[in-house]
Amino acid sequence: MLSIQDIREAMERIHRHTTRTPVFTSRSLNEWTGKEVYLKCESFQKGGAFKFRGALHAISRLTDEEKKRGVISASSGNHAQAVALAARIHGTVPVLLMPADAVEVKVEAVHSYGGTIIFYDRFHDDRDTLEKNLAHERGLTIIPPYDHPHVMAGAGTVALELLEEVPDLDAIVVPVGGGGLISGTACAAQGIRPSIRIFGVEPEGAEDTLKSIRSGKRVQINPPDTIADGLRATRPGLLTFPIIQKRVENIFTTRDSEIVEAIRFCLFRLKLVIEPSGAIALAAVLKNRLPSDVKRVGVILSGGNIDPGCLRSILESKQD
Amino acid sequence: MLSIQDIREAMERIHRHTTRTPVFTSRSLNEWTGKEVYLKCESFQKGGAFKFRGALHAISRLTDEEKKRGVISASSGNHAQAVALAARIHGTVPVLLMPADAVEVKVEAVHSYGGTIIFYDRFHDDRDTLEKNLAHERGLTIIPPYDHPHVMAGAGTVALELLEEVPDLDAIVVPVGGGGLISGTACAAQGIRPSIRIFGVEPEGAEDTLKSIRSGKRVQINPPDTIADGLRATRPGLLTFPIIQKRVENIFTTRDSEIVEAIRFCLFRLKLVIEPSGAIALAAVLKNRLPSDVKRVGVILSGGNIDPGCLRSILESKQD
Repeated sequence: MLSIQDIREAMERIHRHTTRTPVFTSRSLNEWTGKEVYLKCESFQKGGAFKFRGALHAISRLTDEEKKRGVISASSGNHAQAVALAARIHGTVPVLLMPADAVEVKVEAVHSYGGTIIFYDRFHDDRDTLEKNLAHERGLTIIPPYDHPHVMAGAGTVALELLEEVPDLDAIVVPVGGGGLISGTACAAQGIRPSIRIFGVEPEGAEDTLKSIRSGKRVQINPPDTIADGLRATRPGLLTFPIIQKRVENIFTTRDSEIVEAIRFCLFRLKLVIEPSGAIALAAVLKNRLPSDVKRVGVILSGGNIDPGCLRSILESKQD
Repeated sequence: MLSIQDIREAMERIHRHTTRTPVFTSRSLNEWTGKEVYLKCESFQKGGAFKFRGALHAISRLTDEEKKRGVISASSGNHAQAVALAARIHGTVPVLLMPADAVEVKVEAVHSYGGTIIFYDRFHDDRDTLEKNLAHERGLTIIPPYDHPHVMAGAGTVALELLEEVPDLDAIVVPVGGGGLISGTACAAQGIRPSIRIFGVEPEGAEDTLKSIRSGKRVQINPPDTIADGLRATRPGLLTFPIIQKRVENIFTTRDSEIVEAIRFCLFRLKLVIEPSGAIALAAVLKNRLPSDVKRVGVILSGGNIDPGCLRSILESKQD
């Protein structure tokens, strides 16, 4: 399991290169929800999402020899961008394995950070096999998007910062894809404040983690179709799942239309650009999914890399 | 003239109710411009724009008797919202005189803050006469959008905060409508750091201040047609203009297409929602209008209240 000490060490290693992202509050949000809501804005993290923390931490642990050979990673986008950026900082060469339907803005960003991209078909190819073969052929170190102790510890630093700013939270609500962010968050937050309650949110149709909790073992689902392109993992991680089982109180699900509403709330009330995967925890809070005795709640807005086309259709989805 | 002491006193009066807005930097922005750029994000101010500072300060100076009678203000939107919000804090009743074509999101916001709106036709009605008559009939105190020492001092607190965070700026670039923000900024900044250079930016077709500087007196222009709806003033203020003449080094102009580019940069690179009037100073910096010896520059992103329809057309204006 991941200890609070692991996460503090990660913070020590990465803080010079990461942004200490701001925590926002909103009077209208508090009035609407009847709670005190603290928004941790990882959209302002380097690379536009929390993913940079984990990628940077994992790469910072490589030996000089490993750095010389390079790294490889498979990702729907934000993790790819994070690896490319972190690789540049540590002077190593990144190869990114991305689904052919990854959102364009993320592909461009990876290119602009100097990453090499290899595309695959996420409905037919076996990504993990591809990745292993490439890593083996080229001597690359795999930097997994979530199922790795260093990546999880890096992700946990979000909660470390949040609790430094707002120590007496009752709960934290977290987007759930493969479970890296929520497992890191849970270990960090409960390591500091054992009573804090951790809630996850998954898109309807992508509730692999909820189903796994209910059946007591890791369940594999079909590739989901959701607007939240960063939360399309089909099975919780080997390392993340036992932590989620132990530490997460409940997983909520949201419809895409609720995510869209949350994005619009961010744009026009909070003046924040948040991507679908990043807005899902707020969507659950806006829709009143939390138990009523949760009064002071941290919400992780995990990223802001929204595709221009996606943003356009969100604005077109309702007459203004 | 406005002294640094006036602005410090304004800060003292308003800081309990205003947000100390964050100052953001961006590696890609610095690389692009070849400068160190510090973005003061007034989009996160209460009411979504810097205007709240001036309105709150002016209302805080009213006597109890004046507060009892109420306030009135004419504005294209952000100032109206600011007055409504500030009035609520000070327990006074606001009447807002708004152009019939004010952007809808601003009208709604004023309503939600409990303001009473009276619409006028900005191409035909004489707004000032309307306002004076209403104030006289109802015993209301006029809170002008810029041409008032307390409003200007309140606006100047933006620069006070910016220079506390980044003391050694070479210059600050400021959007120019009626001149309240730039005159307050100039007095605050040069009061602290006499060598600091102040630049303004106006939309093409709305360059009443530039024309006034060139002819040495306040010039009246026709109601301008620009996407920057907050910068449609047709003449610099009686109080703001002499300060601008004395303290502002130059006024740049930008095309609407350049403002749109800056808004897109804010959305997709910085993850910030900035309205057209709020993005104009950044537009000038992105288009390299600044003298090359300006290295460390503050840019005021003055507001974030963009209309959903306007944002939609910005996203549609280019194929992504």
